Amino acid sequence: MTEELEHVHCLIIGSGPAGYTAAIYAARADLKPLMITGMQMGGQLTETTDVENYPGYPAGVMGPEMMEDFRKQAERFGTEIRFGYVSAVDFSGPVHKVIVDDTKTILADTVIISTGASAKWLGLPSEEKYNGFGVSACAVCDGFFFKNQDVVIVGAGDTAAEEATYLAKLCKKVTMLVRRDEFRASKAMVHRVLSTPNIEILYNTDTKEILGDGKSVTGVKVVNNVTNEEHDIPATGFFVAIGHKPNTDIFKDWLAMDEVGYLITKPDSTSTDIEGVFVCGDAQDKIYRQAVTAAGTGCMAALEAERYLAAKEYA
Amino acid sequence: MTEELEHVHCLIIGSGPAGYTAAIYAARADLKPLMITGMQMGGQLTETTDVENYPGYPAGVMGPEMMEDFRKQAERFGTEIRFGYVSAVDFSGPVHKVIVDDTKTILADTVIISTGASAKWLGLPSEEKYNGFGVSACAVCDGFFFKNQDVVIVGAGDTAAEEATYLAKLCKKVTMLVRRDEFRASKAMVHRVLSTPNIEILYNTDTKEILGDGKSVTGVKVVNNVTNEEHDIPATGFFVAIGHKPNTDIFKDWLAMDEVGYLITKPDSTSTDIEGVFVCGDAQDKIYRQAVTAAGTGCMAALEAERYLAAKEYA
Repeated sequence: MTEELEHVHCLIIGSGPAGYTAAIYAARADLKPLMITGMQMGGQLTETTDVENYPGYPAGVMGPEMMEDFRKQAERFGTEIRFGYVSAVDFSGPVHKVIVDDTKTILADTVIISTGASAKWLGLPSEEKYNGFGVSACAVCDGFFFKNQDVVIVGAGDTAAEEATYLAKLCKKVTMLVRRDEFRASKAMVHRVLSTPNIEILYNTDTKEILGDGKSVTGVKVVNNVTNEEHDIPATGFFVAIGHKPNTDIFKDWLAMDEVGYLITKPDSTSTDIEGVFVCGDAQDKIYRQAVTAAGTGCMAALEAERYLAAKEYA
Repeated sequence: MTEELEHVHCLIIGSGPAGYTAAIYAARADLKPLMITGMQMGGQLTETTDVENYPGYPAGVMGPEMMEDFRKQAERFGTEIRFGYVSAVDFSGPVHKVIVDDTKTILADTVIISTGASAKWLGLPSEEKYNGFGVSACAVCDGFFFKNQDVVIVGAGDTAAEEATYLAKLCKKVTMLVRRDEFRASKAMVHRVLSTPNIEILYNTDTKEILGDGKSVTGVKVVNNVTNEEHDIPATGFFVAIGHKPNTDIFKDWLAMDEVGYLITKPDSTSTDIEGVFVCGDAQDKIYRQAVTAAGTGCMAALEAERYLAAKEYA
């Protein structure tokens, strides 16, 4: 039994800002890209309400609407967008194999990985209820909405410490909830937090519930996990800074990644140790994680894929 | 005589996509950025007509309009934008000095350089007349507009060769004008051009005039600089690929740059060897040079400036 496998020049995995931008550039370069969206079409931004920092929308835009704009633009130039998820890859040969929905194999000359990352959440129903309405996992994205207001941040690592000091510049008061009796962050970052007058740290403290008026956050109910005492903290914003998980498990046998799972690319490039495989967006970025930086690397990946194919064709 | 000098947290030099994006992020982080626009407010994109590849504009946008959107967004969050040019800098001290319009000194804790680059042009009046109406200096940006059409490209270096093969995939025929009797490009790139069936190379050939119907390009009058024979090549697009010049002369005593003048930043970062000085956009990018990649690095520069200031404040 022989089977004719689908073979494409350029396969894009994921449909966030990085993936769509890669698609726009790949389609305009006539690579006829095929995009496999992943289970969350549009990526993390579809969970976001107002986006004010992506340049090009002077009045701001809702996250899902912005991703619709990106999708339309990618489709306009001929990207084929298919709903589905990539369940496995095989990067052993010169032509790459990508398994979609556990069943279908697609061959691809180039693969652009833009699978993104997911913020970790506490898992409280009230946290989900107010996500985008006072609850956020990105201080740099959303801190500005809480200017001169009181906010609560949960986390104890370097990123949490950095986000707390970022928020402290904008907000009246920042209450930082640390689960244990000490930080996990580096000494320098802890020192920075401790030196910031408008950050109050509550150690041994867990979040019990995000309080709200049905529309937006009004406070946070916390519990001391040593004394079991509870109290409410008035706040309009609740920031979760307990880490991110890049969506890169399926690549672990093939590509280099750090201990958290961020894929490693060559400096100032999206290329990997495997020829024809490029990574862009949050799957490779643990530092900036912004829509515009993801879009920038998506463009880089498509241009690098185009140049790789051109070099190969006439080698 | 003492003089009170203006002192800002964050000074942004240049007003293209990189500068405005840096301004949006710096303003939202409450760095109260001051932008000195440079003589061409809005940068290279103000010379462009249709922009179809910047994600977020599914129907395309005119370059100047897009830069107006970026400006509004930067101003909305409190960026002060001043028309003027930076004539000199002094990066010798912990606080940086920036001289504006040859006369005024501003002190800045952080400086974000986004002075961009300028495409080199042949200098023909007809080239200027049809710029944006068939004449372009960026194949990746504008090639798509000439799908299945005949175009002419002038240049003999690696970038010209790369752009010619890029265009050859989209266009019916690409005529490449080489001034001397050989390329300056690397052997591999020359081989790629020579192997592409729909590229015709004319050696010893100069461009005499871009021909048009008053609205857009219809052809190119060329002259053989050995025989002095002239002839017209029908074409709807004329691509100039004779190089770019980054606008970085004023930094040459302070910052590392390559032989062309592109400023050198640390890998995967916008930081330089001088603390508190960051470079984004085309002033440091000779590879991708797209609005979206410039915007991405502008965001990086602002976040790096914010983190640098936070670390310094509580050191």
